[in-house]
Amino acid sequence: MNVNLGRRRQHFRTVTFDPPTNAVHLIEQRLLPHKFSIVATPDYRATANAIRDMIVRGAGAIGATAAYGFAQGLRAFRGRSLPAFRKHADTVFRTLAEARPTAIDPINAMRGIQTALAHVSEASIANQQEMALLAAEAFAEEDVQHCLDIGIQGLPLILDGMNVLTHCNAGWLAFVDIGSATAPLYAAQAAGRKFHVFCDETRPRSQGASLTAWEFAQQGVPHHVIADNAAGHLMQRGEIDLVIVGGDRVLGRTGEVANKIGTYTKAVLARRHEIPFFVAIPLSTLDWNLELGFDIPIEERAEDEVLGAWGHTPQGKRTYVRVANPTSHARNPSFDVTPAELITGIITPVGVFKPKELWRRRRHLGGPA
Amino acid sequence: MNVNLGRRRQHFRTVTFDPPTNAVHLIEQRLLPHKFSIVATPDYRATANAIRDMIVRGAGAIGATAAYGFAQGLRAFRGRSLPAFRKHADTVFRTLAEARPTAIDPINAMRGIQTALAHVSEASIANQQEMALLAAEAFAEEDVQHCLDIGIQGLPLILDGMNVLTHCNAGWLAFVDIGSATAPLYAAQAAGRKFHVFCDETRPRSQGASLTAWEFAQQGVPHHVIADNAAGHLMQRGEIDLVIVGGDRVLGRTGEVANKIGTYTKAVLARRHEIPFFVAIPLSTLDWNLELGFDIPIEERAEDEVLGAWGHTPQGKRTYVRVANPTSHARNPSFDVTPAELITGIITPVGVFKPKELWRRRRHLGGPA
Repeated sequence: MNVNLGRRRQHFRTVTFDPPTNAVHLIEQRLLPHKFSIVATPDYRATANAIRDMIVRGAGAIGATAAYGFAQGLRAFRGRSLPAFRKHADTVFRTLAEARPTAIDPINAMRGIQTALAHVSEASIANQQEMALLAAEAFAEEDVQHCLDIGIQGLPLILDGMNVLTHCNAGWLAFVDIGSATAPLYAAQAAGRKFHVFCDETRPRSQGASLTAWEFAQQGVPHHVIADNAAGHLMQRGEIDLVIVGGDRVLGRTGEVANKIGTYTKAVLARRHEIPFFVAIPLSTLDWNLELGFDIPIEERAEDEVLGAWGHTPQGKRTYVRVANPTSHARNPSFDVTPAELITGIITPVGVFKPKELWRRRRHLGGPA
Repeated sequence: MNVNLGRRRQHFRTVTFDPPTNAVHLIEQRLLPHKFSIVATPDYRATANAIRDMIVRGAGAIGATAAYGFAQGLRAFRGRSLPAFRKHADTVFRTLAEARPTAIDPINAMRGIQTALAHVSEASIANQQEMALLAAEAFAEEDVQHCLDIGIQGLPLILDGMNVLTHCNAGWLAFVDIGSATAPLYAAQAAGRKFHVFCDETRPRSQGASLTAWEFAQQGVPHHVIADNAAGHLMQRGEIDLVIVGGDRVLGRTGEVANKIGTYTKAVLARRHEIPFFVAIPLSTLDWNLELGFDIPIEERAEDEVLGAWGHTPQGKRTYVRVANPTSHARNPSFDVTPAELITGIITPVGVFKPKELWRRRRHLGGPA
């Protein structure tokens, strides 16, 4: 998507690769929304660190970063022994996979490259190195294409004059480009439709206020940030027409959606006000194995996230401030599970489905036979 | 209530009066939870400024502050002319009333003193000055008594082992002592019941994280702060048994409750999970005139509240940090209205009532004939 650099608008992807320098280029998301910069990681270990340290975050984005990082690691191998090359590849895989141990996307992305290489196992090391890069590029392109397809599928939902509510960041920063929840909005903007977005700030990490609002400002999408507490009131007053969120894991068997904490609350409110509630995801977010949403592990993150906030001082210094009583503790469940009955539809690259329809349509959605 | 000062625990009220120095003493709430201090306002103008600048906030607390400020102003009059005294009294009244123009409590508190003085209009200036102070003391005592009575009425609701959810601060800092939503909890604690409280942080001003959590820490009430987004998830997992909130305005005709933004959301969630949802208020919060909750004016406060946060840096400096994208704007509705059907009961000093019961019981509740 486009970034406004002073007077100039320039197109950027969240993750790209520079073959001559064998470097992965990443938007430094930890400094957003206050500073836009690109970080180049010179080797696969630096790329793994960038994933670990959350320079890059979001399912699609870390998947593509791991894919590029895997190719980067393979391309750096200088020996001639095929067994040594394979051993090196295992180390690269493990290093990148361990950077964010609970995430599935980096592993899936690298497995895709391994599969591609397995089909050409007779190839020279040099050929395998270049094939790995081609496979990584293909993975990134596919991520972009899936998001574009989500946009096409979701476009009919965004009507002129609508007020749309978003939660957290499932935007282009969470993918290679376009985003999932934002894809229908960017498609509608391209189609010339006029709409306005309320961005939940999404405490405790405030990705809505910092990342989603930044994206919308860059793309010229009219928007206002609101406290998470305000959505119910705005729905009651008729100021919200549609809710679109992303998903961290969607159960193909039940249609349940695990997503950022607070998503469930917005779904309950939307149902009460008969406001359509949509979840936009690529197919890789579908989990065809788990049988019960209650069994999705809910990560409890550090309590400091709830007890304070990160931001910029009036002097422009990034700092953490403690807001809560210094002797109090916090609970910080970071995800919640929304049941199928509260979800109007799941927007995927291949169509919009009722949550309970997913299992029946599983072959169409890349699921099991 | 008690405040822990190092090893010592000392009883404080939010607002008191010191007759020898003719000064109002206030807990400086803007520095909480990081610093506990008492401010003495030497004259009625300083007292008005303390209300305006939010050194003191909360319906009952600013009512009592205005009552004391009114007596303070009258006691400072040095002349002998009764007409000049009356003119001075009007100025004091107006100055204090204008400090928080939308609040009703300071006006009601000062009118109560005027009524008391009107009954003794033949009295000397000196007598009127001392009667004003007695009336102000009576007002403050009544505020405490009402909160104690709310506690007695609400006590049967708090059972051993319960997890209670609170929103915003309707604690002793918002009144002279005890608080409204906190009164049943403090009563249950005094009765030896074991319970635990989840305090909604209550963005954007975070009164739950800063003030309510501070109060609970001082009183030794087990509690955890949570993001406003987390309550729905905790309810879904069976971790919340009861919700108690305060009220800014409760409509006697309809049972609708205006309270801090986010209250409505918690009521919707509580209904979905069949969790009792109670509102605790003194009788002064009842509005017998308005006929429709939709007509309650909803204050839109400054957008900076939503776009960032106030807190303490690791170096102990109080500062504001901007969290949101610097070029984005915010909407900041500060209150919402919860319909009667979502409210299990209204806890008042004279009993617990169904919201729709208020009008029928209006004479018992100090309402119109």
